[in-house]
Amino acid sequence: MTTDDRPVLVFDVNETLSDMRPLHRAFEEVGVPGELAQTWFASVLREGFALAVHGEAQPFSVLAKEMARTLFASRPPTGGVEDAVAHVLDAVQRLPVHADVPDGIRSLAEAGFRLTALTNGSAATAEGLLERGGVRQHFEHVSSVEDAPCWKPASEAYSWASGAWGVPLDGMLMIAVHPWDLHGAARAGMRTAWIDRYGAPYPQYAHTADIRVSGVRELAARLNAGGAELTD
Amino acid sequence: MTTDDRPVLVFDVNETLSDMRPLHRAFEEVGVPGELAQTWFASVLREGFALAVHGEAQPFSVLAKEMARTLFASRPPTGGVEDAVAHVLDAVQRLPVHADVPDGIRSLAEAGFRLTALTNGSAATAEGLLERGGVRQHFEHVSSVEDAPCWKPASEAYSWASGAWGVPLDGMLMIAVHPWDLHGAARAGMRTAWIDRYGAPYPQYAHTADIRVSGVRELAARLNAGGAELTD
Repeated sequence: MTTDDRPVLVFDVNETLSDMRPLHRAFEEVGVPGELAQTWFASVLREGFALAVHGEAQPFSVLAKEMARTLFASRPPTGGVEDAVAHVLDAVQRLPVHADVPDGIRSLAEAGFRLTALTNGSAATAEGLLERGGVRQHFEHVSSVEDAPCWKPASEAYSWASGAWGVPLDGMLMIAVHPWDLHGAARAGMRTAWIDRYGAPYPQYAHTADIRVSGVRELAARLNAGGAELTD
Repeated sequence: MTTDDRPVLVFDVNETLSDMRPLHRAFEEVGVPGELAQTWFASVLREGFALAVHGEAQPFSVLAKEMARTLFASRPPTGGVEDAVAHVLDAVQRLPVHADVPDGIRSLAEAGFRLTALTNGSAATAEGLLERGGVRQHFEHVSSVEDAPCWKPASEAYSWASGAWGVPLDGMLMIAVHPWDLHGAARAGMRTAWIDRYGAPYPQYAHTADIRVSGVRELAARLNAGGAELTD
């Protein structure tokens, strides 16, 4: 692959770059089972996608709060509900990056790849995460769908990034742990890389990812090795 | 309200009529925390809605299996993954109705309301649930979006039911515990009733429900009391 052929790398943020496991502890700290952290995050995305079905959108933080309130209605936290909601939302602002992220991002940047991030969360939350991980300076753009017409996986979200950044869709590689994100990106015309940290099966109903790796470090090794085709 | 003015009642099925709490035990029986039952269900809907954003659809059972496999990849069950998936899916087929359902449904049927059900799950699963609850005979139609172009909350799902049953959208009352379902139904032109068993807040971003009740028994009391307007 020549330098000109190389795709602009588009990283998803929540769970792809951020390690959300500390959220378990935040839920435990308000007196409910830590596993509800996963329920909460799946619910926030579920609500965001339900709105996207209608071409509607709300900020991530609005859905994040409402879904925490809904969850705490059937599983009352110790202390007040609003205090518990605030505690959880605050923990989201302090999540770390995954262990494989700093080395992987630095390696890709040193190899001359253009790096961007496109999140369904807020740009400020993504910026904070990348700052804490010591890699913010390697990203040319850190953008949120809050500036786009719709959340990912709607095609409009990827198209908006293409327009905002001045990069054609077929010149971008979407990188995510979520198959729904890669499916949407592929439908929009992007190439895709799946980060699979847990050896999960890739859903049969989603557009097959062009690359499959176990983390950002392995992604860097694969992309830096070059090759004309982005295939496994 | 005269008999002719009364809406055809459209019940959502999963969580609205079925009590999903026994699923916690099914997850515990395969050696993982029971709370993952909620994560699993939220994830199945999240995936279904992500496809609906593109106008695509898959059977509920396909997403149910894939999401159980994904969950069990990071939280390995005792015994094999496929055995655990089968155990959970089997438990879904044996869920009971909520305690307020039998009396409420019988009361509505005796008052002469036309009752239907529209599920994102399979029609067979819904039929089985209503049979176990002893109320199947009161439902004129038990239909699945698997026969529609798309899952709820896409407008096409409600429109399909309107066509299949020969009932205009504005002559139907959608009844659900999920605000996303009511929001979609309201956008499609239906009236809506929210069943709120846990005193949860109604999300500010969803179309306000015309009626709010704590269960099907209270819904029957409210509707049987008549009144020209379906308002709180």
